[in-house]
Amino acid sequence: MIKLWGGRFEKSLDYEIFNFLKSFDVDKYLFFYEIKIIYVYVKNLFYLKYINFYEKKIILNSLIYIKNNFFFDNNEDIHSYLESRLIKIIGELGKKIYIGKSRNDQVSSITRLLILKESNKISQLLSFIRKNLIYIAEIEFETILPGFTHLQIAQPITLGHYLLSWNEMFRRDHIRLLECKKKVNFCTIGSAALAGNNYLLNRFLIKKLLKFKFLTENSIDAVSDRDYIIDFANFCSITIMHLSRICEELINWSCNKFNFLILSDKISSGSSIMPQKKNPDLFELIRSKSGRIYGNLFNILTILKSQPLSYNKDLQEDKESLFDNIYTIKNCLNCFRKSILLLKFNKKNMYLSSLKNFSTSTDLADYLVLKGLNFRNSHFIVGTCIKYCEKNKINLFNITIKELKKISIFFEKDIFYYISLEGSIQSKNNYGSTAPNQVLKSIKRAKYLLNNIIINFKNDRI
Amino acid sequence: MIKLWGGRFEKSLDYEIFNFLKSFDVDKYLFFYEIKIIYVYVKNLFYLKYINFYEKKIILNSLIYIKNNFFFDNNEDIHSYLESRLIKIIGELGKKIYIGKSRNDQVSSITRLLILKESNKISQLLSFIRKNLIYIAEIEFETILPGFTHLQIAQPITLGHYLLSWNEMFRRDHIRLLECKKKVNFCTIGSAALAGNNYLLNRFLIKKLLKFKFLTENSIDAVSDRDYIIDFANFCSITIMHLSRICEELINWSCNKFNFLILSDKISSGSSIMPQKKNPDLFELIRSKSGRIYGNLFNILTILKSQPLSYNKDLQEDKESLFDNIYTIKNCLNCFRKSILLLKFNKKNMYLSSLKNFSTSTDLADYLVLKGLNFRNSHFIVGTCIKYCEKNKINLFNITIKELKKISIFFEKDIFYYISLEGSIQSKNNYGSTAPNQVLKSIKRAKYLLNNIIINFKNDRI
Amino acid sequence: MIKLWGGRFEKSLDYEIFNFLKSFDVDKYLFFYEIKIIYVYVKNLFYLKYINFYEKKIILNSLIYIKNNFFFDNNEDIHSYLESRLIKIIGELGKKIYIGKSRNDQVSSITRLLILKESNKISQLLSFIRKNLIYIAEIEFETILPGFTHLQIAQPITLGHYLLSWNEMFRRDHIRLLECKKKVNFCTIGSAALAGNNYLLNRFLIKKLLKFKFLTENSIDAVSDRDYIIDFANFCSITIMHLSRICEELINWSCNKFNFLILSDKISSGSSIMPQKKNPDLFELIRSKSGRIYGNLFNILTILKSQPLSYNKDLQEDKESLFDNIYTIKNCLNCFRKSILLLKFNKKNMYLSSLKNFSTSTDLADYLVLKGLNFRNSHFIVGTCIKYCEKNKINLFNITIKELKKISIFFEKDIFYYISLEGSIQSKNNYGSTAPNQVLKSIKRAKYLLNNIIINFKNDRI
Amino acid sequence: MIKLWGGRFEKSLDYEIFNFLKSFDVDKYLFFYEIKIIYVYVKNLFYLKYINFYEKKIILNSLIYIKNNFFFDNNEDIHSYLESRLIKIIGELGKKIYIGKSRNDQVSSITRLLILKESNKISQLLSFIRKNLIYIAEIEFETILPGFTHLQIAQPITLGHYLLSWNEMFRRDHIRLLECKKKVNFCTIGSAALAGNNYLLNRFLIKKLLKFKFLTENSIDAVSDRDYIIDFANFCSITIMHLSRICEELINWSCNKFNFLILSDKISSGSSIMPQKKNPDLFELIRSKSGRIYGNLFNILTILKSQPLSYNKDLQEDKESLFDNIYTIKNCLNCFRKSILLLKFNKKNMYLSSLKNFSTSTDLADYLVLKGLNFRNSHFIVGTCIKYCEKNKINLFNITIKELKKISIFFEKDIFYYISLEGSIQSKNNYGSTAPNQVLKSIKRAKYLLNNIIINFKNDRI
Repeated sequence: MIKLWGGRFEKSLDYEIFNFLKSFDVDKYLFFYEIKIIYVYVKNLFYLKYINFYEKKIILNSLIYIKNNFFFDNNEDIHSYLESRLIKIIGELGKKIYIGKSRNDQVSSITRLLILKESNKISQLLSFIRKNLIYIAEIEFETILPGFTHLQIAQPITLGHYLLSWNEMFRRDHIRLLECKKKVNFCTIGSAALAGNNYLLNRFLIKKLLKFKFLTENSIDAVSDRDYIIDFANFCSITIMHLSRICEELINWSCNKFNFLILSDKISSGSSIMPQKKNPDLFELIRSKSGRIYGNLFNILTILKSQPLSYNKDLQEDKESLFDNIYTIKNCLNCFRKSILLLKFNKKNMYLSSLKNFSTSTDLADYLVLKGLNFRNSHFIVGTCIKYCEKNKINLFNITIKELKKISIFFEKDIFYYISLEGSIQSKNNYGSTAPNQVLKSIKRAKYLLNNIIINFKNDRI
Repeated sequence: MIKLWGGRFEKSLDYEIFNFLKSFDVDKYLFFYEIKIIYVYVKNLFYLKYINFYEKKIILNSLIYIKNNFFFDNNEDIHSYLESRLIKIIGELGKKIYIGKSRNDQVSSITRLLILKESNKISQLLSFIRKNLIYIAEIEFETILPGFTHLQIAQPITLGHYLLSWNEMFRRDHIRLLECKKKVNFCTIGSAALAGNNYLLNRFLIKKLLKFKFLTENSIDAVSDRDYIIDFANFCSITIMHLSRICEELINWSCNKFNFLILSDKISSGSSIMPQKKNPDLFELIRSKSGRIYGNLFNILTILKSQPLSYNKDLQEDKESLFDNIYTIKNCLNCFRKSILLLKFNKKNMYLSSLKNFSTSTDLADYLVLKGLNFRNSHFIVGTCIKYCEKNKINLFNITIKELKKISIFFEKDIFYYISLEGSIQSKNNYGSTAPNQVLKSIKRAKYLLNNIIINFKNDRI
Repeated sequence: MIKLWGGRFEKSLDYEIFNFLKSFDVDKYLFFYEIKIIYVYVKNLFYLKYINFYEKKIILNSLIYIKNNFFFDNNEDIHSYLESRLIKIIGELGKKIYIGKSRNDQVSSITRLLILKESNKISQLLSFIRKNLIYIAEIEFETILPGFTHLQIAQPITLGHYLLSWNEMFRRDHIRLLECKKKVNFCTIGSAALAGNNYLLNRFLIKKLLKFKFLTENSIDAVSDRDYIIDFANFCSITIMHLSRICEELINWSCNKFNFLILSDKISSGSSIMPQKKNPDLFELIRSKSGRIYGNLFNILTILKSQPLSYNKDLQEDKESLFDNIYTIKNCLNCFRKSILLLKFNKKNMYLSSLKNFSTSTDLADYLVLKGLNFRNSHFIVGTCIKYCEKNKINLFNITIKELKKISIFFEKDIFYYISLEGSIQSKNNYGSTAPNQVLKSIKRAKYLLNNIIINFKNDRI
Repeated sequence: MIKLWGGRFEKSLDYEIFNFLKSFDVDKYLFFYEIKIIYVYVKNLFYLKYINFYEKKIILNSLIYIKNNFFFDNNEDIHSYLESRLIKIIGELGKKIYIGKSRNDQVSSITRLLILKESNKISQLLSFIRKNLIYIAEIEFETILPGFTHLQIAQPITLGHYLLSWNEMFRRDHIRLLECKKKVNFCTIGSAALAGNNYLLNRFLIKKLLKFKFLTENSIDAVSDRDYIIDFANFCSITIMHLSRICEELINWSCNKFNFLILSDKISSGSSIMPQKKNPDLFELIRSKSGRIYGNLFNILTILKSQPLSYNKDLQEDKESLFDNIYTIKNCLNCFRKSILLLKFNKKNMYLSSLKNFSTSTDLADYLVLKGLNFRNSHFIVGTCIKYCEKNKINLFNITIKELKKISIFFEKDIFYYISLEGSIQSKNNYGSTAPNQVLKSIKRAKYLLNNIIINFKNDRI
């Protein structure tokens, strides 16, 4: 164990307080990136002739050895761990590398490297989900189900159209992730404790070797800034919110009262006491993860509120919620990804439900408008039709033309096509609307846009 | 590994989804309480003659054995873990105990037992802190330091009085904890999945053996309710908020510009790059923990928002934030407890600072009121005095009576006692005010009130 | 317009910044309490002989006049407004009353008075709601509906039992409100700016005249503390969470797919485009208010995080979220109160749904246990029954004893009572369970407990 | 008053519930945009020949009249308000325009128009702030002050460099705002209630006339989506967090113990009881606004959590927090903008403080490294120097070379330049570091980057 700062201290930290302050058990997840940065830093020291070729080789080899032989010990943090191991292996030479560098600038860069790496993995999950949603939408481009507003049956829509609405949510998430990644892509090395660096550091070289795109502009800001963690937390919050909405739908759909969805055994579990139960546990659990991820967002926002510049120990607390966000969002997206392919729609029930609650009333009103009435009056007439149907316990599909004509003389026989499910669906033939041929057009655009962002992620580094 | 619900399922869960759904790695912390409840439950089964004396003995012994031989395996949760181990040891007999009981009611009771236990530990930490604050306040009952409003020096106060203001915060936290404990103290066993229990269960007996104070009134509510977790989270949030305020003060005080506090090596650490630094890391880290605890509160609030009754898988997510709250608040209070005894005040600096910024101006105004002016006019005259002092670069302690009289004829020589630090302090001789003899009175009441709540906690169970 | 602090200032505030800083448009809602406190304070000044009987009379009369003739002007805050109006009316005498008192201690007391008053109103709303829930529960004590877990039909329950679960939520809210009120019930007057008061103030007299129960113990704490606002915000958060859960249920119930609830025209609205729609707008809007109230809680928690003692301008921001909380929670409870009496249950649909999803499977398993099997094996056998039923598209109510016997020889003819809805319900005959006669017992206790807290609120002051 | 949906309803809404449900008092702020959209919509109806030239003219003129003669009435919302006024003025013709359009798609577009407009105003405020920060940084490019870490004096830095760190924060905010604007820039008209539109609507024409950049891709998503409000709330949260950090610094700096800043009377206020006080009220109040804005973020996130598709009444609650965010962030930025130009630095005090706490110790260590020692050993030697100084109550500026040599023979006379404030500052001559000539280079880049984003905002529409 090594402390990087013992010189002027006469007593050592209280043991319990040392344990409270140390961060090694959390930042061990950054170990790989710590190695990477020191590796590059050593190359920089050689380039600036502070160490010779032979020394460089020894250090780099030791780093590789340490990387492959990680064990956990009682060090304060990942930085002191690495330094202490180096010194144990190569003695005094190990003490040379910590020149001109502080934990303050270093920890920001290794965290950024982690986020960049993980962003790519998350992007792949999003791509996979979107690809499959589009794929199923193509199959179900003319399957009819009821669309809801206020959880009341509103209008018939197509399942393909519906699934594309999920794709739109994830598309925005995907864009947000890309923007976030761009903001993370800055190298802070060379900011030192806060004032910047004097010598033995070529920031451009280090940036290049670490494959960062940009250099941070200001050393004080570089060690104080945690915006990139909030940006990532924002991405996670909106994404989990989307998942919670979709899961709520899927839970509704698998409810016995809806019965739109047949739960696969692979994603459901049962009850320890009620043998008949098959529960949508997966969707419930994903829904509930919104709590954790919202909490993580408020965690980091609270930490930074009225935090004076530049570095304060408070910033150490940024990592656990970040790691939890990465772990949780990956887990949720991955399990959701799996579940998509196991969704088994009860299309018959969907169709039958679409016939309920006078779902094509709006089409009835639109019909009257076509015949020359204004919309507000048409709306009122349709209201009368519905009251009539309710009183006589019939619906719009078995009302007769005679009955209709009593309510308004504008009704003709062709009305029955307009208010059929198929007629209603077909008439929504506008950009982004639910008509099957519009769904097919949307799918083309959706594929193009997905492809675009995948390329964008590839062109971005790491 | 055992699943408590397999009967009607034909395929097994996807492996990754199983891992996502299972909670054993989190709820293993409840293992001790799970054992306890099953232990009591078995006694109940014997009492109701469902099992005989011999069977009871075998099961109870096995439970003790399992308790002492915990190992982690791949079970879904703590309940299936215990059942599977029992069956492995005692065969078919082990299958008898899960009658009339659901994971839904059981998990609430074991969580409640945990909170009750931990509340007592937290109460002890609060007692310790309060005792020591009162103790130091007694020593420093007449030490003078500047009181701040708007981070501007406002009026001289006594350090004892100041420390008692911290005690007041913790006193409220203590009361909140006691109230919370009372709300947790309910036994839910017998609510089963949601509809309640038919037979083989004596709720009163179980309650008594588990030393709960009350029975829950309604089985549906009992399995849906997580208010007690929010109540505890609320307690934690206010407590950490108090700690963050106090730590902010201590960080300010140990700042070189204040220099009111000399940091002990036992609670500070240094810089890896700046050898001269001694940082108030402990106080900064406690301050930042507010983020985590606020986050935990919003986690559970979000989970429960618009959650339909009764039990949903979402509720599984209640535990991790609860455990983190318990762990964090205990850690913070414990480290803070240690730091109190290591606080070394720089009293000379405190005294000198009290002389700054015309800190006794209010006393100057009050003096004029005593002489017959109304307060608003006095306030205005004092404003004039201060402008005069600032222009002439003097302060209220070296202005002459001659100069004062030029500003207002009401000033007499006795003014200099009124505006001395000691005179100012002594005059605040009112219930709860800063005068030293009031501080001593407050200390007596503070001791009495602390004693009271300690007794209250004792009288409450567990 | 008057500024209470102009003396030493040479330039006046920038106009836009003055508008940003002033709080009068918000704290005008405290005007009534401001008057009240000054009224009492003047009596104190007379009691301590600082003003004479004649002066007292003039001031008190003026206060009454001002109270009845409020108009809004450009003052900085409510305190300067009152002082300026007093001076305008009674001249120099008006300047006398602001002695020994600061805005810091005063604003806390007037806010506390407001909360005390509003708590009583909120308590009445809670009482009304609970009374009516109990009343309807009594009517529906044996009405059968399906209970859900995981939004899957789980077991039949009684509607009375169900409504009592809502009553339990509100009962806890009621208790929380009472506890909150107790914590608010402290008089801070006499703490002045932060150091306390020297003379001209009898804290006991003022407390008594304002009908506060307690005095704050420490002047520094008294001006810094905003715990009581958080306590109230916590009460609101849990209460709105409960409402959001209940509203989610009611929205589900009024969904066409459930059809458990017939929406009254008095609480629903329609669609501007879809003439057939009747939407549960009220329940949706109440549900969404959870966002606002959670936000208000986080608002005040954030403000106080790492706020140094004692008073800072930040604390001015405590009021708007408090007022919004009061307004919102009262509105939501009041509208919910109205809606309860308009709930029209579709009992036939509830009953029919209870027959779905093998809702009495647990009773089937329990039956086998009674016959001597252990529960885990019974659970498995029932699983087999259900698979059998599903394959043959029958349910537990039309399976024959012959078919059952093939699965397990333990089944006898009496099984059909056990698995009937009525048999299932009746068997849950335990404290807090769903059997009708237990519901009636619960109702008795519920009435008693409601009565208790109403008395408690009455015995508490204001 | 008009209800847009009355047809099938037999009773009217309860009065109090109507008041609870209606949104007109909030969405009146969108009136201007409502007019704008209907204006464009009417042009579309003419284009599609649904109305003739003469009718178009009448309606458009009426709209202009209504726009200029707004009064508040008891309508349910802004949409019914406009329709009812139109009908009052032009009779049946007014009923024609609501064809093919729902409140669901319309409200999203008018809200987006508002955000677009306000984003430009906010961008101007950010530009102004950044311009002035850069301007002052240029003046103070070599003014020395102490940089802090852990609120302990760490290293000397330049004030110009410091101010540029603020500029970096605002630069990121500016970028975030631009990204947000891009995401808002979508026209939803044509999505109708949720299923899309059948006829009488040219989405491309409407988009063009409203100057939106894009069309939304999916009608269901378009009426359910509120991501753009969260994106804006995220922008506000990070921006206010930055302001809270900067204000914390300014409050510290104006504290009597720091005395780095002389508060202008134009931005400060006083105390009603303490005549000497001059408080940094403005900075405190801005700091506290973080609570409100964080709260607004949590508000909207909570509302959307597990909200089923598509439109629900819950979404009505999105607006108040949005408007409050716009109002608050504009106010805070505007007041902060004013305060920047009034900042009066106490440079002498800044300089003198930089000499404290061995602020150039790191330079001492770096010196030894230059002489051939490794950094860890140098760090230790400097620790020894500091202990020596502390024991002898001297600092690094009056220690003699003789004394230094006793500690390490590597010290030479040139050390005293290295550890002077000026020497230390000059040596940090690296990209983004604190040396004056680096500050000048940074300023050039900062100006360029600011210009860039201003152009970007201009090129974007509205």
